[in-house]
Amino acid sequence: MEISCPKPYNEYDKIVLAHGSGGRLSNRLIHDIIISVLGETYIDSAHDGAVLDIPGKQAFTTDSFVVTPLFFPGGDIGYLAVNGTVNDLVCCGARPLYLSLSLIIEEGLLISELVSVISSVAKAARIAGIKIVTGDTKVVEKGKADKIFINTAGVGSIPEGRIISPHQCAEGDVIIITGTIADHGISILSTREGLSFDSPIRSDCTPMNEIAELIFSVTNDIHVMRDPTRGGVASALNEISHTSGKEIIINESDLPLNPLVKGACEIMGFDPLYLANEGKLLVFLPGKYAGRVLSAIRSHPYGRHARIIGKVTGDEPIVKMKTLVGSTRIVEMITGEQLPRIC
Amino acid sequence: MEISCPKPYNEYDKIVLAHGSGGRLSNRLIHDIIISVLGETYIDSAHDGAVLDIPGKQAFTTDSFVVTPLFFPGGDIGYLAVNGTVNDLVCCGARPLYLSLSLIIEEGLLISELVSVISSVAKAARIAGIKIVTGDTKVVEKGKADKIFINTAGVGSIPEGRIISPHQCAEGDVIIITGTIADHGISILSTREGLSFDSPIRSDCTPMNEIAELIFSVTNDIHVMRDPTRGGVASALNEISHTSGKEIIINESDLPLNPLVKGACEIMGFDPLYLANEGKLLVFLPGKYAGRVLSAIRSHPYGRHARIIGKVTGDEPIVKMKTLVGSTRIVEMITGEQLPRIC
Repeated sequence: MEISCPKPYNEYDKIVLAHGSGGRLSNRLIHDIIISVLGETYIDSAHDGAVLDIPGKQAFTTDSFVVTPLFFPGGDIGYLAVNGTVNDLVCCGARPLYLSLSLIIEEGLLISELVSVISSVAKAARIAGIKIVTGDTKVVEKGKADKIFINTAGVGSIPEGRIISPHQCAEGDVIIITGTIADHGISILSTREGLSFDSPIRSDCTPMNEIAELIFSVTNDIHVMRDPTRGGVASALNEISHTSGKEIIINESDLPLNPLVKGACEIMGFDPLYLANEGKLLVFLPGKYAGRVLSAIRSHPYGRHARIIGKVTGDEPIVKMKTLVGSTRIVEMITGEQLPRIC
Repeated sequence: MEISCPKPYNEYDKIVLAHGSGGRLSNRLIHDIIISVLGETYIDSAHDGAVLDIPGKQAFTTDSFVVTPLFFPGGDIGYLAVNGTVNDLVCCGARPLYLSLSLIIEEGLLISELVSVISSVAKAARIAGIKIVTGDTKVVEKGKADKIFINTAGVGSIPEGRIISPHQCAEGDVIIITGTIADHGISILSTREGLSFDSPIRSDCTPMNEIAELIFSVTNDIHVMRDPTRGGVASALNEISHTSGKEIIINESDLPLNPLVKGACEIMGFDPLYLANEGKLLVFLPGKYAGRVLSAIRSHPYGRHARIIGKVTGDEPIVKMKTLVGSTRIVEMITGEQLPRIC
């Protein structure tokens, strides 16, 4: 995407400490760059806070993003920061409505890079139909941050009748994943390592709100939704299993995997079960709805590769996998460091 | 404050990258340290988001905190992160209810320092009566952040009848400040420069929600409230003046100033009008309520030094000050860098 700097900035201009002083330069940065690039995705409150009017129950969530590199195939830190928080709201059963945007910028960041990132924030907000209503900008000295860190917090409304929580996980639940796993993790890692494949492996970074609404159009009787980000499907399933005290069994042969990602995992020695996804949902629901929900998910471009991958089988907090060779192994929670700064 | 590390951590233990991996070590950090130290100020949702039920209108705000040093007389980055967001909610006319807490930690941070910071978060949340309901923790490599950055986002409820906004600023409004100015700025700066005075200059870092409720107990007809943080009273007044298009005149002789802070400003060559406050409100209101509101504010320990400092005098976006020598000067918005990383 070709991004041009808003005047009077040019391609060599950089962020300086005074952009974070709270004075005139801060104001210019906020108005001439951030608000101007956000366009209609930003609602100005002329306040240090926004006034909302959400009837019923609200969902509230936050994430800080420190991904490196800032730009990767399929997205960048701005695109990720919006989608990550949108997807956390979705996993509460909410319709995402409002977002805060808080930037910690390292002195010396190119203003053109900032403009690129903010353009991606606007693009993601447009796609997810969410508005940015409040924010904050800080600048720290060179060497005291890594280019830019972004925090987004999100607020959404939860329609009546939706109770989505790991505590709802019940024996007999069928588990669906909305598409291929490990795409984001491999995209970041191969970019970072400078590995090249026939075609670049793209992150799956996308908003899941439309898929969620398709799911709820079938039934509100959904038990758990979780986006398997940092730590991957293995960590997400373990968290759900330990919170609910339920046994989960998945089938390795049912895990959707892009062949390129599979190949990259083999080359680099990574288990795709532990790699991050940024545009996938794990959905736990009563088996009687599974077929119709699966069809609904597959009707969406982001859900074409959705699969049933397992079910909830008992009252013990453990995650197991039937492997390709027919044995059963325990899927542990990741213990050490696999991939730092993946999101 | 003597803080001991929760077992099994000891005083030499440090944060490692794996604490941010989303796996078992992340879980331990979150449960054994963060949630355990937050105690009853934390409400667990077992989710990546919280479900709230706030009737009527909601206020929503965010701030990232990058203050250096982390610990200063009168507070630390954790205490500041809660109070800063509480006070932004207050300035929307809201009762602060829920907070998110997002940490970006540099590898190598002492776990004992993290525990100190989180203890202060809990202390501030207790005083302000706000609950932490969702959060996030990231770890970045040594040299890629500066010990710890904290983002808090806040949600509050706005009682009916309160419309607080810079757009409400009206000719004839009286302007009250709830206490002495520049305390936070001078506290940070003198700590940073290693200056010592007869007694240390303490930051005014405090939650303003009780004072706000005292103000609203007199009348809901309050026009503007603003906490003059980064950029100080001068920047806050300029923002209000430019948003509303109104002329503001303040009297230098009415500005409450701790004599120690005044002396430090003279020694270091700073204008207290531009220095940050973290426990003060500027209140714009119709003159007829000014006396009763001033008394209400002064009845609170944090409001003993409240003063009327000026008024709104016309339809031109400009801020002026009657100086001690009797002349009138324009109070400009700060242009360059005065104090980086003050909050």
